Amino acid sequence: MLKLIKNLSQLFIGKPKITSDHMENETISLIMKRRSCRSFTGEEIDAESINTILEAGRFSPSTVNLQTWSFITYSKNEWKEFFGHSIPFKGAYAIVICADMFKIKDLFPDFKETPYINNSFAIFNAGLASMNMTLAAEALGLRSVMLSETGRTGLLDMKTLKEKLKLPKHVLPITTLVIGKPGITFPGIPPRQPRNTVVMKKGYDLNAGSNLKEWFKQMLVGYKVTHPLSTLDSQIEFYRKKMSEAEKEVRKVFDPDIKKN
Amino acid sequence: MLKLIKNLSQLFIGKPKITSDHMENETISLIMKRRSCRSFTGEEIDAESINTILEAGRFSPSTVNLQTWSFITYSKNEWKEFFGHSIPFKGAYAIVICADMFKIKDLFPDFKETPYINNSFAIFNAGLASMNMTLAAEALGLRSVMLSETGRTGLLDMKTLKEKLKLPKHVLPITTLVIGKPGITFPGIPPRQPRNTVVMKKGYDLNAGSNLKEWFKQMLVGYKVTHPLSTLDSQIEFYRKKMSEAEKEVRKVFDPDIKKN
Repeated sequence: MLKLIKNLSQLFIGKPKITSDHMENETISLIMKRRSCRSFTGEEIDAESINTILEAGRFSPSTVNLQTWSFITYSKNEWKEFFGHSIPFKGAYAIVICADMFKIKDLFPDFKETPYINNSFAIFNAGLASMNMTLAAEALGLRSVMLSETGRTGLLDMKTLKEKLKLPKHVLPITTLVIGKPGITFPGIPPRQPRNTVVMKKGYDLNAGSNLKEWFKQMLVGYKVTHPLSTLDSQIEFYRKKMSEAEKEVRKVFDPDIKKN
Repeated sequence: MLKLIKNLSQLFIGKPKITSDHMENETISLIMKRRSCRSFTGEEIDAESINTILEAGRFSPSTVNLQTWSFITYSKNEWKEFFGHSIPFKGAYAIVICADMFKIKDLFPDFKETPYINNSFAIFNAGLASMNMTLAAEALGLRSVMLSETGRTGLLDMKTLKEKLKLPKHVLPITTLVIGKPGITFPGIPPRQPRNTVVMKKGYDLNAGSNLKEWFKQMLVGYKVTHPLSTLDSQIEFYRKKMSEAEKEVRKVFDPDIKKN
């Protein structure tokens, strides 16, 4: 028990180490304080905010400015009609963010020869757009969470999403961004890996991994706190099934000639 | 010629369509006005700014908070010593941002069964961290560019980087973020895909691609303006070689059992 309290306190120590001067910068502060939100009030958000968030995505940088993404949007009612249940966590708006090499396939017919490179860039670019949209939401006083799992849409639900959203080959539904007004939020920042395992000088540090054990312990404690009714083991068992199912689908995107199995 | 001017003017019309109210928000404005910078003064940047940028990366969100990234850093002198030439575009600091499933491999031994899922998430997460670092730099009055090509390090130079940086398997050097004080900058925003080809309602729009022709024309014009001494064709020919070389390397990361060729 004492250990749990000690570990818990460490959870809250996971603070960025920057000067108070920089922390006063509005954007820096938003970046550092942003947390995934898993409880929304269900209240609608205004059309202008939604518009600005989508524009933040559309104006993100991308490899050779190819903008290899598509954003499939749902209001609360549209989602409910489409998926048969509410947006997870009572979110007010959801955007399925796709890595999309399909749309530009006719403009660059050569690209099919390098699917690994292209899809890697497409997924990376989708990450850039996702972060911009997340920060735009924060800037407008909203909160968000990027979903990848738990039957709630995202890459791990690729099979279902592919059918329901009629995604063509080469479109990866990499995450679902859920946006809304924040409900009850959990304080503190989930444990970050120690700086010396993340930032390396000049070359790769092969020992970084062995210095992650303490961090991993904190992750397990954090999991207990945020998921009191479940264990990480049972959760991993659940993920495992979804992951191996989704694995086949993702693999097809990278390797279009792969035989159906 | 008249057509060129007309197309050029369209380049500058590529503005985000948001309310002036939102544009006054500091973070929204940074997101919308950010442009890749390809000319730096070479001036050093202070240690505190570098620190804050790296912390912005370290505190980025990630799938299940797994932080599947590593940042390999270089000052101007370190880069020159290491690579034998200056940081591209006279940048003052460079960060090779890696998608890194290697570091946590011992914590989650099961993960090797789903390399496509894991690497997709790792690359996506690297995108989130890259965008946060980029915006942190902007917030501090600096500018940046994410490199992927042209012998300047990034994914397309994976073979060289793997050797030089001693990257283990399952570490993808997805981009090199170059940071510095801005030199001469080119006005306007490179053409964005029309909103109705990016934002889709409820399901995937199979016709989006056919509405991208006008955008692609603008891209070609933009290329002429920003690369007066080259043609897109010759550039693509150059890329093609690098891409097929890098393709093999990236594929090995996804498919660790693949035979060496």
